[in-house]
Amino acid sequence: MRPSGRDPAALRPVSLQPGFARHAEGSCLIRMGVTEVLCTASVEGRVPPFLRGQGQGWVTAEYGMLPRATHTRGDREAARGKQSGRTQEIQRLIGRSLRAVTDMKAMGEMTVTIDCDVLTADGGTRCASITGAWVALHLAFEHCRRMNIMTRNPLKDQVAAVSCGVFQQVPVLDLDYAEDSKADADANFVLTGAGGIVEVQGTAEGAPFSDAELMALLGLARAGTAELFAKQREAAGL
Amino acid sequence: MRPSGRDPAALRPVSLQPGFARHAEGSCLIRMGVTEVLCTASVEGRVPPFLRGQGQGWVTAEYGMLPRATHTRGDREAARGKQSGRTQEIQRLIGRSLRAVTDMKAMGEMTVTIDCDVLTADGGTRCASITGAWVALHLAFEHCRRMNIMTRNPLKDQVAAVSCGVFQQVPVLDLDYAEDSKADADANFVLTGAGGIVEVQGTAEGAPFSDAELMALLGLARAGTAELFAKQREAAGL
Amino acid sequence: MRPSGRDPAALRPVSLQPGFARHAEGSCLIRMGVTEVLCTASVEGRVPPFLRGQGQGWVTAEYGMLPRATHTRGDREAARGKQSGRTQEIQRLIGRSLRAVTDMKAMGEMTVTIDCDVLTADGGTRCASITGAWVALHLAFEHCRRMNIMTRNPLKDQVAAVSCGVFQQVPVLDLDYAEDSKADADANFVLTGAGGIVEVQGTAEGAPFSDAELMALLGLARAGTAELFAKQREAAGL
Amino acid sequence: MRPSGRDPAALRPVSLQPGFARHAEGSCLIRMGVTEVLCTASVEGRVPPFLRGQGQGWVTAEYGMLPRATHTRGDREAARGKQSGRTQEIQRLIGRSLRAVTDMKAMGEMTVTIDCDVLTADGGTRCASITGAWVALHLAFEHCRRMNIMTRNPLKDQVAAVSCGVFQQVPVLDLDYAEDSKADADANFVLTGAGGIVEVQGTAEGAPFSDAELMALLGLARAGTAELFAKQREAAGL
Amino acid sequence: MRPSGRDPAALRPVSLQPGFARHAEGSCLIRMGVTEVLCTASVEGRVPPFLRGQGQGWVTAEYGMLPRATHTRGDREAARGKQSGRTQEIQRLIGRSLRAVTDMKAMGEMTVTIDCDVLTADGGTRCASITGAWVALHLAFEHCRRMNIMTRNPLKDQVAAVSCGVFQQVPVLDLDYAEDSKADADANFVLTGAGGIVEVQGTAEGAPFSDAELMALLGLARAGTAELFAKQREAAGL
Amino acid sequence: MRPSGRDPAALRPVSLQPGFARHAEGSCLIRMGVTEVLCTASVEGRVPPFLRGQGQGWVTAEYGMLPRATHTRGDREAARGKQSGRTQEIQRLIGRSLRAVTDMKAMGEMTVTIDCDVLTADGGTRCASITGAWVALHLAFEHCRRMNIMTRNPLKDQVAAVSCGVFQQVPVLDLDYAEDSKADADANFVLTGAGGIVEVQGTAEGAPFSDAELMALLGLARAGTAELFAKQREAAGL
Repeated sequence: MRPSGRDPAALRPVSLQPGFARHAEGSCLIRMGVTEVLCTASVEGRVPPFLRGQGQGWVTAEYGMLPRATHTRGDREAARGKQSGRTQEIQRLIGRSLRAVTDMKAMGEMTVTIDCDVLTADGGTRCASITGAWVALHLAFEHCRRMNIMTRNPLKDQVAAVSCGVFQQVPVLDLDYAEDSKADADANFVLTGAGGIVEVQGTAEGAPFSDAELMALLGLARAGTAELFAKQREAAGL
Repeated sequence: MRPSGRDPAALRPVSLQPGFARHAEGSCLIRMGVTEVLCTASVEGRVPPFLRGQGQGWVTAEYGMLPRATHTRGDREAARGKQSGRTQEIQRLIGRSLRAVTDMKAMGEMTVTIDCDVLTADGGTRCASITGAWVALHLAFEHCRRMNIMTRNPLKDQVAAVSCGVFQQVPVLDLDYAEDSKADADANFVLTGAGGIVEVQGTAEGAPFSDAELMALLGLARAGTAELFAKQREAAGL
Repeated sequence: MRPSGRDPAALRPVSLQPGFARHAEGSCLIRMGVTEVLCTASVEGRVPPFLRGQGQGWVTAEYGMLPRATHTRGDREAARGKQSGRTQEIQRLIGRSLRAVTDMKAMGEMTVTIDCDVLTADGGTRCASITGAWVALHLAFEHCRRMNIMTRNPLKDQVAAVSCGVFQQVPVLDLDYAEDSKADADANFVLTGAGGIVEVQGTAEGAPFSDAELMALLGLARAGTAELFAKQREAAGL
Repeated sequence: MRPSGRDPAALRPVSLQPGFARHAEGSCLIRMGVTEVLCTASVEGRVPPFLRGQGQGWVTAEYGMLPRATHTRGDREAARGKQSGRTQEIQRLIGRSLRAVTDMKAMGEMTVTIDCDVLTADGGTRCASITGAWVALHLAFEHCRRMNIMTRNPLKDQVAAVSCGVFQQVPVLDLDYAEDSKADADANFVLTGAGGIVEVQGTAEGAPFSDAELMALLGLARAGTAELFAKQREAAGL
Repeated sequence: MRPSGRDPAALRPVSLQPGFARHAEGSCLIRMGVTEVLCTASVEGRVPPFLRGQGQGWVTAEYGMLPRATHTRGDREAARGKQSGRTQEIQRLIGRSLRAVTDMKAMGEMTVTIDCDVLTADGGTRCASITGAWVALHLAFEHCRRMNIMTRNPLKDQVAAVSCGVFQQVPVLDLDYAEDSKADADANFVLTGAGGIVEVQGTAEGAPFSDAELMALLGLARAGTAELFAKQREAAGL
Repeated sequence: MRPSGRDPAALRPVSLQPGFARHAEGSCLIRMGVTEVLCTASVEGRVPPFLRGQGQGWVTAEYGMLPRATHTRGDREAARGKQSGRTQEIQRLIGRSLRAVTDMKAMGEMTVTIDCDVLTADGGTRCASITGAWVALHLAFEHCRRMNIMTRNPLKDQVAAVSCGVFQQVPVLDLDYAEDSKADADANFVLTGAGGIVEVQGTAEGAPFSDAELMALLGLARAGTAELFAKQREAAGL
């Protein structure tokens, strides 16, 4: 039995609220249960040094958590003077996931920086960030199209992510914090609308897991992201 | 004429939403026009080294701005590896303002850390932070009282802040960004419910200002904070 | 009764020694009682990136304290790897104060960096820094004029600062450390030769203060800076 | 055809040289083709603060690359003042992988720190680090047993890692740099001697990959690690 | 011919002014020509962790240069966030030199921190720092003796330093900046009152130098430090 | 009697293995007894800003120690976020020593960065670094000559280094860790093939030393480096 009483294959209630941030070219506030992440997309008319003069764009991401997004207050990374390894790992994952569905040649020499800031954390913040970030990115590209900065939206597909895990021997979808902290294994899947795998990150917390378990988790993730893709299209006005 | 069309003595629409953050002992989302700051209060059962063993508590504050709270994206301070001078100045101000109305002897050896994170910025973020922080702090102290950690709420008075300025020769209340960036002078006033001055910080941006102008701004601030005190009491359930 | 035996409206003995630093384009060693600050002005033929190509100059300031300027040794900020919030707050204040009386268009694309280094601290170091820095800046501009780098001295007025406070219920001028550490309120005033207010920073250390007290402190400051302006003119050879 | 001419299911020549480092309690120099990583295990009689008094041990890892381990010189992280996100991600992975096969209760309150320093890089350094680190850790535990610090070796199983990828549409084992930089997808698998999955990290570099491809890569990894387990036992004298 | 017109074996005019810093337990302002260094000694009743409980004391040093001590302004190390390699090298040298003549057993568990801050630089600042620091340290120990914290002064001998160099083929004593920047070789000698060598640091700037040249420089240094020892005794009241 | 049983004038067994690093333009693994340092030379087609446009090259060095090169594990400098004073002092010394024998005009606008990474430490790592670095630098220059980037090898002479010390009153050559930690004095000599002194750094650890002792150590060093020069020529294929 899951602590939340959810069915093993059930997502938490999901909402994606586009345009939450007033100033950003694109933004989305995503809620998955109690987890709440504000995703903004900022467009800038230049690329990092390693891409200059190549006629292509870049998409990158930064991730942060408000100090009291969690049950007990965490250090403010700005005050401590550096980002944790976990933060860096997550923001690298978000950036790779979005670049996997973006035609960077079609962007021109522009950079879109996605900021994912966790207002409230209850497990699954990196996955929620990716799912919400796609909406913010889509809206920013649409903004560029309306401004005639781009002739078409460079997104080739949707991308969304969900975490699954083995909890008390049962594969379950969309771990919340109560499950995540006790799961035997958990895996984050980043999948495309067309059904391809962009990233899979599975970790045994207790005993190692088997090939069959990995496949079962992937199956749950595929069902879960199908729902998320629908929510994304709705939020993006597609 | 003010860019917003407001009367010289008019505040922007103000709302204080208590309990916005799920996990914090106290929290308040304050909106002053477009400016939006999430204030949380986190209680911890120990004091900084310089106060140990003295039987008193401590209240401190940290301040941050989401990178895309502003019109154009700013650097993430955590990524840059240090907090700006402006950030440090503001968080020191918030901390001092709250300590001025707290009976730290009545707290026992506890620390409350206030986090003020700007979700959207349109001028006046430091003042909104102080006003919202007081509500978060009050709620956290009430929480401690209900938990029997404290026998009474250690707050001695309310504290709120507002910025005023001389805009096109006219003293005006509650500057927004469009005014702030063009004001001849601006001053932040931190005042108590009983009418005392806790902090005044006035700066001439263009020509120096006169004693009379300083007094005029103080008068506007006193009227403005009267409204804010009412909003605080309402949000705090007083 | 003041610990120093001074009259409430009396400054400490003040001296401004121009040319103390051998290599700087302008310099001044200011002593206010035991407080001693070495101010130097360094001229450089370029401006920060945000001002390039605008045909105007820039004046900025840095502040530091020798580790044993104080009663007990403080950390060396260079060894600790960062400047404290207090240091950054002070150097921002010094820079703003000097820019308020400088015609930056008249400078051409040049930067003057003022360094204020406290050799001995006994209260009032930020105010002494501003007062001494004006002399260093004036001398550096005169140097530029003699070198035909500038056709006229870009200073529009004098600027000086003094701290006042409410000590044992009495408003007093020019707090030393013994008073500062026990004052009910203290306020730093940065005033111009023409009588305008450039900055006012008042803080209640104990009970909040009233409008009347603020005005009384401002009155003392005006009298005190009148003396300082005379000392500045003498040191600057005016 | 692979650039190295290897069969799709062939590992590079592998050697594990135990005892390379003179001073460490356990060490192993692993070579996989040109890739060369020095793994050392250092034993210390205390645990990190979050584990104190719980009667269990800890295994952690740090990772580094000599500046000229690569084709062109990279920055020295010590000189730059921080570890890259990639470095932190890798050292977190190594630590998790080793802890998955260690009975930390059986260690007592001790910490083993594994250092993996890449002397020469030609792809697959994180996987080689894990494989070599297991040998170093085993030897360090044996050392502790001989010193009567531990009564039995706390390792529950072997752990080894290998990267696989889809190169020119063909799933191949043990990517070298020439393949890694052009692969459509690559995945790192951390597997136990008993056949369980400890970690899987798959990333689409070009087009997303399919479930079947993921399974094919996992199959290759299982065959590859079987060889590595034999090499580990030999190096560990088992 | 030396730029200063000095005889090859002549020191610059030297003065040591004891007690320059009001708050320090011991202090000395040393001038060697234009070079000017403020040395303070701060006493603290504890030792660094590696010495705790061993019943001995510690002497350590920090070094800094005001940004405009030099002909052109240098970066403020506190603002840049780290001390340069040169600074660290110098402060390590000063600390070693002073410890070489201190009976640390006789100190008890106390630390004396010497701060050497260069107000004006014209070559030879590290040597001047050592010479002045000895006076500050002596005075601080005398202070401890008067306070009955120590029963005798733990200094076993005097220590002083001077730089020598080969300038236009001629060995010369006490290089100033004009010579230092053009010398073929320069060497810093730290010598004791009894004639022993504590440190020698010789560097060929142009062509390598010979054994005979090294000995000639050492001879000059011995004569030069004889004068410095006399000045130290005078400043220390011996 | 030396702990190693060596004759006072005997070096430890020395080997210099050229070409150890696969990717570097030049490299050498030097072993002096148990001490083992990997030296690589990396060529880059540009110079630091302060040399641009002057038609000359630059040689610089960085130094590091693997965390478990030593008897007990040391902090990883990359993890701690800064290089120690000792590290900076050593890498400055290596750079100066190599530049002393390089005709930087003959290099053209190129930089060679020497990395000296200590794999195992048993005393004398800075001296071994210099001796090994010369071979790496020579090989890198030869590489440039073969690539027709340079017309001749810009090295003017050999340079090598050895530490000597006074151990139990006897001057001895090439201190190992057991001696170094107990020596009364130790001195590092950097000498050229032609017999000149490039650097001498002598430090009294216990009692100060005499002129005669300094000369005796220099004599030992001259004999020791003669052997090292022969080994260098052999490794460099000269």
